[in-house]
Amino acid sequence: MLAGIGLMPHGNPVLDPPDKETRKLAEVLKNIGKAFADVDAYVLISPHNVRMSEHLGVVMAENLISWLGFDGVELPGEWRTDRELAEEIYERARKEGFPVVDLHFASRSGEYSRWPLTWGELIPLQFLEKKPLVLLTPARNLSRETLIKFGETLGEVLEESDKSAALIVSADHGHAHDENGPYGYRRESGEYDRLIMELINEDRLEELLKIPDELIRKALPDSYWQMLIMLGVMHRVEVELKGSAYACPTYFGMAGALWVRE
Amino acid sequence: MLAGIGLMPHGNPVLDPPDKETRKLAEVLKNIGKAFADVDAYVLISPHNVRMSEHLGVVMAENLISWLGFDGVELPGEWRTDRELAEEIYERARKEGFPVVDLHFASRSGEYSRWPLTWGELIPLQFLEKKPLVLLTPARNLSRETLIKFGETLGEVLEESDKSAALIVSADHGHAHDENGPYGYRRESGEYDRLIMELINEDRLEELLKIPDELIRKALPDSYWQMLIMLGVMHRVEVELKGSAYACPTYFGMAGALWVRE
Repeated sequence: MLAGIGLMPHGNPVLDPPDKETRKLAEVLKNIGKAFADVDAYVLISPHNVRMSEHLGVVMAENLISWLGFDGVELPGEWRTDRELAEEIYERARKEGFPVVDLHFASRSGEYSRWPLTWGELIPLQFLEKKPLVLLTPARNLSRETLIKFGETLGEVLEESDKSAALIVSADHGHAHDENGPYGYRRESGEYDRLIMELINEDRLEELLKIPDELIRKALPDSYWQMLIMLGVMHRVEVELKGSAYACPTYFGMAGALWVRE
Repeated sequence: MLAGIGLMPHGNPVLDPPDKETRKLAEVLKNIGKAFADVDAYVLISPHNVRMSEHLGVVMAENLISWLGFDGVELPGEWRTDRELAEEIYERARKEGFPVVDLHFASRSGEYSRWPLTWGELIPLQFLEKKPLVLLTPARNLSRETLIKFGETLGEVLEESDKSAALIVSADHGHAHDENGPYGYRRESGEYDRLIMELINEDRLEELLKIPDELIRKALPDSYWQMLIMLGVMHRVEVELKGSAYACPTYFGMAGALWVRE
């Protein structure tokens, strides 16, 4: 059964908030951690782990190991995969014809069955109790419809499971907010981020489907594709928004939102 | 153009050979290194990196970083991906309808475009001059025909390339040679390994196709699937065997073989 959904950023500033907005954002992230402190597992979708253009990934490797921090911020730690839940998700998605791959590494089981984690997973995990994980990866070249339908299937598997699970969507938004940042300044980053926060706060996430490709392309988010999967999950489970926040202390926009099942 | 093919084991004993047979094997591996010292790139197929059941992988990540040794033997180092050649292989295979995925990690380019290496790659690489790599991963649940045809496509891409490349097939063979080993003793491991060496030495590799599933399953090799890909490459490029050796100093069989283009 799905306990709820957390949309969480993966930027270093939430670890040591430099300003009031980022502190408010970090509070929402802590509330996500509290809301889901008793679940059996997290299903974590990350855009900064394996990136396949046309295939969704389900990590099966048993041991998930910190490997790659951003900008020198290392966050050591090890987590375990909920292999049973991972297999349920993979098998259902495969049977339903989604372009999905099972991701083992080195060995199929045991101590050498390992998988590397990056800041994309490690930063959200700093706010969450240590639980077994199912790590999923989105794909940018799949159609919007496929991503939503995969989310619907994911929602069905989670609802049918005996386990209580929370869906954690790791995502940052526009990356061109600062003319001195690595992607320069583009007004579309602000436009995209304002729109995303409106859709979240006004319960209008169906309108994700109306966002033009051009705006997404220019805004440089790493949120859109996994948010479509999240929308699909929401088609299968009624959830209620309990809190949200946005901050942009550097060049990229960060959002947090907590939904719990109604 | 394909310079040749090296079949190389990935067991720690070749790094410090404990007996005469393993020393002979290490000599063959050194000869592979010498034969391919002047190529532009290696295409390396490894069974101990990402393992997907039904999809072949082409690693696109730019920086390949030592991550996981076996039994405490760490082999640090970094290599670069030949992204151009990797894209040629991926795009051709994709267009021809193979179940192939492009594997990025963390970021699509730059310093955070990284990929972890294991003993499956690192041990063969100890015998090879440092060159750009294309790392490929096999898949056990694909049909024999699909693996061979993928090899044929790979051979065509390599032959058409302006670059000189060597194909390196990382493989160990039966893993149940020792009753005290982790997989115990099965006579099929010896049977499989003897057959593989016969097929190599007698230029009868087409007979790989005749090996019964049952024998492969019981022998516990991690060689068969990437050897089918190798056979497909050999369908497109005439090569000549220049040396081979076999050793089994512990519980698994190790083979080395060097083929150069005729």
